[in-house]
Amino acid sequence: MAGEAASALGLSMVVLAEHPDDAACDVAAEVVIGSPLVESELRALAARCEVMTFDHEQVDLSLLRTLVAEGVVVRPGVATLEVAVDKAHMRRVLVAADIAVPAHIVVDLEEAGPQNQAVEAIGAFAADHGWPLVLKAVRGGYDGKGVWPVNELAAAAEVVDHLRGSVLVEETVPLRAELAIMVARRPSGEAVAWPAVETAQVGGVCREVLVPGRLPPELMAEAVTLGQRVAGIVEAVGVLAVELFWSTDGRLLVNEIAARPHNSGHWTIEGAVTSQFENHLRAVLDLPLGTTALQHARVASVNIFGGTAGEDPVALLPRGLGVAGAHVHLYGKEGRPGRKLGHVTVCGDDAIDVRSRAWAAALAIGTPQPDGLDLPTGSA
Amino acid sequence: MAGEAASALGLSMVVLAEHPDDAACDVAAEVVIGSPLVESELRALAARCEVMTFDHEQVDLSLLRTLVAEGVVVRPGVATLEVAVDKAHMRRVLVAADIAVPAHIVVDLEEAGPQNQAVEAIGAFAADHGWPLVLKAVRGGYDGKGVWPVNELAAAAEVVDHLRGSVLVEETVPLRAELAIMVARRPSGEAVAWPAVETAQVGGVCREVLVPGRLPPELMAEAVTLGQRVAGIVEAVGVLAVELFWSTDGRLLVNEIAARPHNSGHWTIEGAVTSQFENHLRAVLDLPLGTTALQHARVASVNIFGGTAGEDPVALLPRGLGVAGAHVHLYGKEGRPGRKLGHVTVCGDDAIDVRSRAWAAALAIGTPQPDGLDLPTGSA
Repeated sequence: MAGEAASALGLSMVVLAEHPDDAACDVAAEVVIGSPLVESELRALAARCEVMTFDHEQVDLSLLRTLVAEGVVVRPGVATLEVAVDKAHMRRVLVAADIAVPAHIVVDLEEAGPQNQAVEAIGAFAADHGWPLVLKAVRGGYDGKGVWPVNELAAAAEVVDHLRGSVLVEETVPLRAELAIMVARRPSGEAVAWPAVETAQVGGVCREVLVPGRLPPELMAEAVTLGQRVAGIVEAVGVLAVELFWSTDGRLLVNEIAARPHNSGHWTIEGAVTSQFENHLRAVLDLPLGTTALQHARVASVNIFGGTAGEDPVALLPRGLGVAGAHVHLYGKEGRPGRKLGHVTVCGDDAIDVRSRAWAAALAIGTPQPDGLDLPTGSA
Repeated sequence: MAGEAASALGLSMVVLAEHPDDAACDVAAEVVIGSPLVESELRALAARCEVMTFDHEQVDLSLLRTLVAEGVVVRPGVATLEVAVDKAHMRRVLVAADIAVPAHIVVDLEEAGPQNQAVEAIGAFAADHGWPLVLKAVRGGYDGKGVWPVNELAAAAEVVDHLRGSVLVEETVPLRAELAIMVARRPSGEAVAWPAVETAQVGGVCREVLVPGRLPPELMAEAVTLGQRVAGIVEAVGVLAVELFWSTDGRLLVNEIAARPHNSGHWTIEGAVTSQFENHLRAVLDLPLGTTALQHARVASVNIFGGTAGEDPVALLPRGLGVAGAHVHLYGKEGRPGRKLGHVTVCGDDAIDVRSRAWAAALAIGTPQPDGLDLPTGSA
C-alpha cells in the first residue's frame, strides 16, 4: 500500500524483500532481495535509497545505528524504533514521561537467577493486581503472538519456562473499548493526527476498525492529544500508531506503539483526505503533510482472513465486489486458514450501514465469522 | 494508475512496455519489454495474461484480430478499438446510430486522385459550412496532435499535401463548453457512468476537468445518457471516454471516443467512490462494477505540464504538497517543457475553492499559466 502511494506521487520505492514473490515487489521501482537483519543486504538497500523506512519491526537496531553513523538517513530514527521493538523499553519511556500505561513489571529472566525467583515476582505482582495477568514477550510479538493471558501461577511458570531475556507482566485491563491513534510527524516535529478510531480485537488480532469510534467525543479528543504527545516523546518520524485501552474504570492507557503505517489506519486510504501511507512517505521525505480530515461521516474497515478451505481470495472477488461501495484491498498473499489476506473499507453516512457492508464483503471473500463480536444484521 | 488499482485489488498486472524505465513498469507484477505493434512481443504479453487490455490506441488491429481468433481474450474487443483508432470509422458508426456529431466529410486522398480534387471537396464543404474548418488525421492523433484548424483553402491544401490515406474535414463547432462522459461496461452490457464533467482544452490539450460541470443539470443528464448509448453502440468493454461539444447553437455533439481510462476521468481516483482505473479492471475482468457516485460536492483536476526550465516535478513536490488537500499525481516522467507530467485533484464543497487550490498546486509544480483560460483568484 505504501508502494501504491509512492507510485501516485511519482516517487521511486526500492523494497528490501525476502522473496521476489512478496507482494511489495510488484509495486516497487526496484527490488533488493535480502533480509534487514543481514548487514550486506541492508547495505545494498541503503546504497539505493535517499531515505530508509520500515513496514515492520524485525530490524537489527545495532546494525541500523552503524548505518546511521555512516550517514544513512533512517526514518523513523533508531531511538524511535527501539521503543517500538522493545515493549519493556516502551513502558519505561512512557512512564518516565508520565503517560498512563497498564500496571506492569518487567522481570529479567537472566538476572532473576533461578526460574522460581521470576515466578515469585509474578506471584507478588498478582497479589497486588489479581489474576488473570498478561505475560508478553518483550520483543517480536504481533497480532496476538508473544502474548499469553495466564489465570494462575502454574500457567505463568510454564510460559516463563519457554522464554529467555525478560518478560513483561501486566494487569489484565478490564476493557470498555480499544482505540487507536495514527499520527504523522516530520523531522521538524510538525505533526498531524487522524481522528481516533475504535478497534475490535479477537484473540489479540484486529478484526475491525470503526471511524469515528463509538465513544464519547471528549474521550476521543483526549486520545488524539495523547497520541500526539506520545509521537513527540518518542520523536517519531513518519507514521506512528498508538493503541489505547479505555478501561471500565475510566483510564486511558497506552498499550502498544508501532512506528509505521498500521492496520488501524488502513481505513485512511479511502476514509481520509490523505492516507497514512502517503503521509508516511511525506513525513519521512520531509515533505508537507497532507490533511487528515475524514472524507465521510462514517468509515468501517474489516480485515479479511483466510477461510478454513484456504480459498484464493482473488477467486472470491466477484462476491466481495458485489457489495456496494466495498473497497477491497488484497495483499497478494496465498489463501491460508486464518492468514490476514487483506481488508475492506466502506464509507458512508450511517455507522451501522458501513459496518454491515464492510463485513458482508469480508465474509463474502472467505473471512470466518469472528467469535465474540456481534455483527450487524444483514452483513452475513 | 491502473497498476496502483490492480495492486490494491491483489491482481497481477503484466505490462508490455517499450522501455524498462516506463513508469508503468514500477507498478507491474511483471514486465514484457516490447511494442504492441510487433507480433512476437504482443504474443509474449498474451502468453502471460488472462485478459489483455490497453492504455493507448497505438495498436495493430489485424494482429489483434489474429490473436482473438486464437483465443486470446482482448477487452475492449477489436470492433470497439477500431472505432477508437479510426476517426472516420467512428463518425460513420455514430451517424449510422443517429448520434449527433460535427458536420464533416471524409476525403480519401488516394481515391480522390490528383491532390486538387481533395482540395476541391474541402472547398465545397467550406462553401456549406464556412471557414475556419478543422482537418484531422484519421488515425494517430492525440492531445491536439493530428488536428489542424485551417482558415482558408490554401492552408487546407498545405495540410493535405503532408497527409496520406484519408482526412476528416469538419466544421468548427462554436463552443459553449466541452464535456466528457466516462462509462464502464462489462462484457454482459451492464454499464455504469460517472457524472458528466466539464473540460477545458487549450490548443487541443486538456488543462482542467471540473466536476460536476458548470452546465445546466438537464444538459449533463442528457450527456450521461448519450455517453451510455455510445458505449452500447460501440460495444465497449472496460472504460470508455466520450468527449462532447456543447455548441453555442445548443447542439450536443460527440467529438472523440477513447476506449480506455482517460485524462477526463483522472478526478475519479479521489472524487468518486470507484475510480475509472479500478472500474476498468473490474469491467475487463467481468467483475461487479463499483459505485460511480461523487464523494464530494465539487472536484477539480488540473493537469501538470513541464515548465520552460524543464524542472524535475518531484523536486517541486514540497511546493505542490503545501497546498491543502492537493492530491498530486506524478507519472514518473522526466521534466520537459510542455510535457504532460501528472495531475492534481482537489475535492471539496466549493467550486471556486477546489479549482483555485488545484491550480495553485499545479502551478507550484511548474505548470505554465494556460493561455486563454481565466484562473480563479488566489491560484497563482
